Amino acid sequence: MNTLHQSFSVRFTYDVYFTENLFDTLNPALLDFFKKHHTEGYRKKLLFILDQGVVAGHPDLPERINTYFASQSVVDLVPDLIVIPGGEGAKNDPTLVDRLVDAVDRYGIDRHSYVLAVGGGSVLDLVGYVAAISHRGIRHVRIPTTVLSQNDSGVGVKNGINYHSKKNFLGSFAPPVAVFNDSTFLTTLDDRDWRSGISEAVKVALIKDQVFFGWLEENAGKLAARDKAAMEYLVHRCAELHLNHIASGDPFEMGSSRPLDFGHWSAHKLEQLTGFEVRHGEAVAIGIAMDSLYSYRLGWLTQAEVNRILNLERALGFDLYHPALEGDSVLKGLGEFREHLGGLLTIMLLRSIGTGEEVHEMDENLIREVITTLKETEAQPV
Amino acid sequence: MNTLHQSFSVRFTYDVYFTENLFDTLNPALLDFFKKHHTEGYRKKLLFILDQGVVAGHPDLPERINTYFASQSVVDLVPDLIVIPGGEGAKNDPTLVDRLVDAVDRYGIDRHSYVLAVGGGSVLDLVGYVAAISHRGIRHVRIPTTVLSQNDSGVGVKNGINYHSKKNFLGSFAPPVAVFNDSTFLTTLDDRDWRSGISEAVKVALIKDQVFFGWLEENAGKLAARDKAAMEYLVHRCAELHLNHIASGDPFEMGSSRPLDFGHWSAHKLEQLTGFEVRHGEAVAIGIAMDSLYSYRLGWLTQAEVNRILNLERALGFDLYHPALEGDSVLKGLGEFREHLGGLLTIMLLRSIGTGEEVHEMDENLIREVITTLKETEAQPV
Repeated sequence: MNTLHQSFSVRFTYDVYFTENLFDTLNPALLDFFKKHHTEGYRKKLLFILDQGVVAGHPDLPERINTYFASQSVVDLVPDLIVIPGGEGAKNDPTLVDRLVDAVDRYGIDRHSYVLAVGGGSVLDLVGYVAAISHRGIRHVRIPTTVLSQNDSGVGVKNGINYHSKKNFLGSFAPPVAVFNDSTFLTTLDDRDWRSGISEAVKVALIKDQVFFGWLEENAGKLAARDKAAMEYLVHRCAELHLNHIASGDPFEMGSSRPLDFGHWSAHKLEQLTGFEVRHGEAVAIGIAMDSLYSYRLGWLTQAEVNRILNLERALGFDLYHPALEGDSVLKGLGEFREHLGGLLTIMLLRSIGTGEEVHEMDENLIREVITTLKETEAQPV
Repeated sequence: MNTLHQSFSVRFTYDVYFTENLFDTLNPALLDFFKKHHTEGYRKKLLFILDQGVVAGHPDLPERINTYFASQSVVDLVPDLIVIPGGEGAKNDPTLVDRLVDAVDRYGIDRHSYVLAVGGGSVLDLVGYVAAISHRGIRHVRIPTTVLSQNDSGVGVKNGINYHSKKNFLGSFAPPVAVFNDSTFLTTLDDRDWRSGISEAVKVALIKDQVFFGWLEENAGKLAARDKAAMEYLVHRCAELHLNHIASGDPFEMGSSRPLDFGHWSAHKLEQLTGFEVRHGEAVAIGIAMDSLYSYRLGWLTQAEVNRILNLERALGFDLYHPALEGDSVLKGLGEFREHLGGLLTIMLLRSIGTGEEVHEMDENLIREVITTLKETEAQPV
């Protein structure tokens, strides 16, 4: 039998810009990006998709975007700025995919045009998916508006939608061509969304960077009190660790490892069990508490270390227990976590603060004991 | 403004195996592949999707697949072999995507499992798309059964479906993990499908390899007479040139160039204008004739060269004119060709036999004259 071997590498590059007031006509960042990527001979089109929740908090946003692009001749703004519902519901609604693909078709957005998404993680995931499958991949610019999307998902390479309520069942790995993190959007978040994204920073600090963990401990009060400068540092450092991890690891997750998903196996399940009433970051905070206590029970973390972790989360204002942990439903999250990626079950635990280590099995009785501990120490009085 | 730069490469490798009687229990090729990629501790699942047209020509195929995997313990074959309609219609029917995604869900096919497609280019394009978007990319094995898919699309990195009859409007770049070219399938093709795929070999020889063009001239009689050994050489050499082109160029087509699409701008349109009655390879043969004559009229090819090209196509049995070329409808193919990829119009023409060169504009009057020439010399008597 004759065989031909195929082998090639594809290089992906993009910049993550940290700025304020992105659509202020005095801020050249976005226009500079398009000038830099201008091709002589034709003007590329821009199709904007906006998160309804962001527009509610910034009613002048569509007008500001129109004004921003009014007096330039580098790109052609599609004047119909599309507004779609945000939150997890956006990923559960297949008609939104059709609506956005129709817009790509109707406005003649080709592979050299740009689809820009302004919103939280769900809108970015949905729009990224539509951009990835249209014409085998339209250039996609992300403008994340929440802490969670600015420091984690929005700077990464994944997109996805839910299918029959299975989270991210459909999706792909498709790096954006640019990410613009505008800290102005963070100031209008409600307290829960402000706090939620911080748990991804706690997570990445725990598995990768004890110095950053120390910074989080020192600044927990400021972060809880909505100090903007502290949050800007947090977002920047967390995004940096996230980007480094992707570039140095397995960007398109061809292997079994999911090292960035510390605390996530139970978090995904908890979100689902509560009908997404518990937000992703809130669920991750609980997942971190569970897997830190589990690591302590394995003898990997000291009592002092696990106390530092739980105390940091408490200082940030997170609840570390939820009644949906009662019963064994959350344990099903282990199997589902394995199934999504496939291969061997692979769970990240902690050897110490700043050092993660993977295991391929978890003891269900030990998980039950950890949940009991959290219930006894953390459950809110009814 | 602060900026973080992201940059990484993703390596893709896969082998294209040339074999006969792939599902003969005496042929170890397919099972050897799964043994090589076996992971201790669990058995990966195989979900087969079969082209109805192939099953019609090989009614014992499902049984042979079941028998092939019956006595081994390396992988778990999903016993429900899914049979779907083939041909362009498969790519026009969105319910097929749902049906296949449902099967991925129902049978718990995860990212380490395999989806295998056995069929012509349309079935491979559809199944490749479903595999690419499910769980952000399930491992995909292609078993192409036509000349066209064995020497061209099936060994490449694209997938896609049509949307509102716009060809490949939805799709992605997602390399397979392996391709198995079984020449036995070629022997049961009808004459039109046997011939069709040869035009991609003529195409790639014209733009890249004058020695291969000479071989095609010498063997045109054998190929037209369905000589299996000649066809096996053609498929192998054409696949090799196609693979080399992908690896040395721009595999995911991030730029504007489409160098492998010689003769294709009019071919895509001709397929559409005839409701896909003209098959892809037949349309490409006409497209090659048109753009070769055009290159001659530009003074790029000599009279002798263009005659060699047209004579080879005639000797292979291709019609080089179709009444749908009458009128200006086919000229719309130029704009649509540009729009699918975006960016500047980029058309491959010929400097000589074996050497292509790209242009960014075409003279519509010259195209009309070329069509008139083909009509006068090639039109079949009514």
